[in-house]
Amino acid sequence: MESDNYNDPAVIGGCSVPVRVNRKSKPGPTIVDVKGITFGSKEVVIIAGPCSVENHEQLMETAKAVKSAGGMILRGGAFKPRSSPYNFQGLGEEGLKLLMEARKMTGLPIVTEVMDTRMVELIAGYADILQIGSRNMQNYPLLKEVGLLRKPILLKRGMMATIEEFLLAAEYILNQGNEQVILCERGIRTFETTTRNTLDLGAVPMLKHLSHLPVIVDPSHGTGHRWMVPPMAKAAVAAGADGLIMEVHYKPEEALCDGQQSLSPDEFTRLMTDLKKIAQAVGRDIC
Amino acid sequence: MESDNYNDPAVIGGCSVPVRVNRKSKPGPTIVDVKGITFGSKEVVIIAGPCSVENHEQLMETAKAVKSAGGMILRGGAFKPRSSPYNFQGLGEEGLKLLMEARKMTGLPIVTEVMDTRMVELIAGYADILQIGSRNMQNYPLLKEVGLLRKPILLKRGMMATIEEFLLAAEYILNQGNEQVILCERGIRTFETTTRNTLDLGAVPMLKHLSHLPVIVDPSHGTGHRWMVPPMAKAAVAAGADGLIMEVHYKPEEALCDGQQSLSPDEFTRLMTDLKKIAQAVGRDIC
Amino acid sequence: MESDNYNDPAVIGGCSVPVRVNRKSKPGPTIVDVKGITFGSKEVVIIAGPCSVENHEQLMETAKAVKSAGGMILRGGAFKPRSSPYNFQGLGEEGLKLLMEARKMTGLPIVTEVMDTRMVELIAGYADILQIGSRNMQNYPLLKEVGLLRKPILLKRGMMATIEEFLLAAEYILNQGNEQVILCERGIRTFETTTRNTLDLGAVPMLKHLSHLPVIVDPSHGTGHRWMVPPMAKAAVAAGADGLIMEVHYKPEEALCDGQQSLSPDEFTRLMTDLKKIAQAVGRDIC
Amino acid sequence: MESDNYNDPAVIGGCSVPVRVNRKSKPGPTIVDVKGITFGSKEVVIIAGPCSVENHEQLMETAKAVKSAGGMILRGGAFKPRSSPYNFQGLGEEGLKLLMEARKMTGLPIVTEVMDTRMVELIAGYADILQIGSRNMQNYPLLKEVGLLRKPILLKRGMMATIEEFLLAAEYILNQGNEQVILCERGIRTFETTTRNTLDLGAVPMLKHLSHLPVIVDPSHGTGHRWMVPPMAKAAVAAGADGLIMEVHYKPEEALCDGQQSLSPDEFTRLMTDLKKIAQAVGRDIC
Repeated sequence: MESDNYNDPAVIGGCSVPVRVNRKSKPGPTIVDVKGITFGSKEVVIIAGPCSVENHEQLMETAKAVKSAGGMILRGGAFKPRSSPYNFQGLGEEGLKLLMEARKMTGLPIVTEVMDTRMVELIAGYADILQIGSRNMQNYPLLKEVGLLRKPILLKRGMMATIEEFLLAAEYILNQGNEQVILCERGIRTFETTTRNTLDLGAVPMLKHLSHLPVIVDPSHGTGHRWMVPPMAKAAVAAGADGLIMEVHYKPEEALCDGQQSLSPDEFTRLMTDLKKIAQAVGRDIC
Repeated sequence: MESDNYNDPAVIGGCSVPVRVNRKSKPGPTIVDVKGITFGSKEVVIIAGPCSVENHEQLMETAKAVKSAGGMILRGGAFKPRSSPYNFQGLGEEGLKLLMEARKMTGLPIVTEVMDTRMVELIAGYADILQIGSRNMQNYPLLKEVGLLRKPILLKRGMMATIEEFLLAAEYILNQGNEQVILCERGIRTFETTTRNTLDLGAVPMLKHLSHLPVIVDPSHGTGHRWMVPPMAKAAVAAGADGLIMEVHYKPEEALCDGQQSLSPDEFTRLMTDLKKIAQAVGRDIC
Repeated sequence: MESDNYNDPAVIGGCSVPVRVNRKSKPGPTIVDVKGITFGSKEVVIIAGPCSVENHEQLMETAKAVKSAGGMILRGGAFKPRSSPYNFQGLGEEGLKLLMEARKMTGLPIVTEVMDTRMVELIAGYADILQIGSRNMQNYPLLKEVGLLRKPILLKRGMMATIEEFLLAAEYILNQGNEQVILCERGIRTFETTTRNTLDLGAVPMLKHLSHLPVIVDPSHGTGHRWMVPPMAKAAVAAGADGLIMEVHYKPEEALCDGQQSLSPDEFTRLMTDLKKIAQAVGRDIC
Repeated sequence: MESDNYNDPAVIGGCSVPVRVNRKSKPGPTIVDVKGITFGSKEVVIIAGPCSVENHEQLMETAKAVKSAGGMILRGGAFKPRSSPYNFQGLGEEGLKLLMEARKMTGLPIVTEVMDTRMVELIAGYADILQIGSRNMQNYPLLKEVGLLRKPILLKRGMMATIEEFLLAAEYILNQGNEQVILCERGIRTFETTTRNTLDLGAVPMLKHLSHLPVIVDPSHGTGHRWMVPPMAKAAVAAGADGLIMEVHYKPEEALCDGQQSLSPDEFTRLMTDLKKIAQAVGRDIC
């Protein structure tokens, strides 16, 4: 193993956890504050929005629906990591500008993905939270670059990453001085094929046991099926997640990507009602 | 693939589901009734007890604690499948007799494992539910043999089994005429090593989507850590599980097997309180 | 982990290897002798034949082809473990009788699978080698039962079994007094879907490093594609395998199971020529 | 799945293979020529060298040993992707300069890794082949950037990438106009823990079946154990690999990374002799 040197890690439950992310290194939980919305507090934060920013109408209509149902932060991809070079790659900076307009209209902060070290500065000029996607969880130059920012980073677990590697990736960011890291479980790759990925909800209590960082869950990518998002979103909150990130599209059947796993506005609205009950049952709030 | 012939299966969401277990073959859910306790109804059934029956005191004390906290069915292994031939293999028939005594004392029905076709008749003479363990999920002679019984069967998912293979294993039992099958998700094997297995809670909504059979979850084997059982038990109920099976031991630190994943009576009692809140939040009951 | 008690295991390269199978417990390799054919010697043993015994013509024609191309042992299933209860389950004892006839005709010893403790005595009355299939690698009552025989056992690795669990399964057999165990790597389950399984050829040097038992490879199940069998068979011999077990059918396109991974007699004949060159290049013989 | 759009792919054996990498799109194999050394020809190309460039003595001594044993291309990392931020990250440009000196001394072309889009131009100014490591197999901006070069690219399979995703990653490079891509199987992540990764040698015939690109194997990362490198290197050549990339260090026990999987010069020399025999047995040459 390469990962034998953690610079005086804490050992928690048999695991070596790197020095800056481990729970013993800090008295309480890290609270990541995004314009008053707090990850890691009693609050359960709901992030929602489309896979990709596609056009003005799609984004504005979806953003209004997210806002109206009680979503707190808007997600939307402008630069998209797609398995095939022939799939839609996102609108680029034009997408970022549309996100700004949606923010202005709804007041919702924005999270969007960065894939390239050369784009960090540009995207940081627009976004409230920068997302590092699964495929880039071990893109170390990129982790170092966002570590130099003083903005929140949403770090998605690689689909092949162990809990240990996930925490080491976060450590790369903290080690550059940026402590505003939100961890996101989004499903891992296993032998099972009926779901897009296997959502590893056990990662939620495990990560919170080992680290002081907030942990959220993506039940959309974690399942790949729209009808599985509500039960798994509820399960994630029951397991102790500090938030959820979900795909919502004003017309899922017309989405340019991930339509089959995107909730409609009506489905999202109903889910928000159910999530509040679960949050209450575990002593948390969804505002 | 061998599994190309399902005898006129239903196709549900792109999956071929065998003829007897699939949801389209039956108007409503299968209710498995064990002395008035019903799997597959509005009720969430709690099964608890030790990994192995070890001795009189251990079993009676644990059974009393399970009963007193509100557990509904008692689990306990008499014939144990152990990875090493040098590990404790269970008390055998003596264990079954102790389980009978515990049933008499507490009124709790009993679930215990059968591993060998030659032992089916013997164990069926004692147990209220026969368990087929993970390692035997594709032991077809055993599945056929318990298919000839008219008793409930608790079928655990193999640690390497796809959803499709799991349903085909259940089909072997139904195809012999025994429809009283309870499916149990208990964690699958993945690359992750901080947990004993990866609890695949997505299997709960997926199995209920494809099949009419009740589905329960084992968060003890699914995580391997006592402190992870409460959050994952709550998550399982939030995801829609019809029940839970958990390891409880009156003195976990002295258990002959699985002590590190067994709840103490106090921990189990606290968890029962929390589970009732979650059940209520999803419109279910824990009696 | 259950497997913490190996009764004074050897530690080899960081692994705990159980007492009877580990290489340190025995000065040289175990040689399993089947009528003068030796597994674990300088010889590379070739086992071939159909997935299932289907009928008289199929078995006799295939057996003749195997013999004529230089195959040394005939495989054929009479009792078949099939994922679906509606697939062909084998001819049962009639299949065993046909295997006896093929043995008489060709002189080739027979290997066939046993799945049920109740059938061990019957099958041992016919077969020269009893096979324990992948799905039964952790069927402990069955392992104990064949451990009481004094006949060679071909133990296939479970499709999601670790090397450690595989050796512990072998230990169950040796612990009953039967030391004639041949280990067989046959592919493990991974996320990859273009092949039926992922053939783990690294298991060959690893098993031979840890244990004194002979190791063979099944490139038919390990790949699921007829055209992949020759390169992977050659690779297995280059990696140090003591033998191969391959599916050959006189008319693969008409096979009742595994036709797409079965070699035709011509393909098998050509492969035998190539395998002899590889065996020679690594200092081994194919007689 | 995102990967539904391959721009008129070929369907080969049930797989959709993207338009530029698929075998049907081109009459013969792609030959990647590096100063007269040809990947994809009858020749089996041997690449060897240290994990990281550590210092002058280490690199020069190792390079001489590689050259003297018959190695054809020198590998060595200057920018290292390490799981922990506290592990040695490589010498950077100083490492590139040492590689140039080793090339000048031995005549061996150089392969070294690039991790950051901003470094592509710099590294391309030094290296004969640019390596994209496993962790960056789906770093699409990086793939596009090296696709703009007219230099050979060694693309390593992600440790949890399917064959389909691997070919789609190569397609990103070809789609920018760079057809000089060498695919490298280096082990995938599975549940098995005795080896660092599971070397998927089946990927060799599968990739060559689906694509016209050359395929090499890395038995050092694929196993993690020095003593497993020789059998798996031989197996790779027997399976049809067009080359090997192996870690060799003049003093493995003092290596700053991957010492336990690096061959000593003596071990490498002996292996070269054995590999020539295997190459000959499959009708290939090691010059």
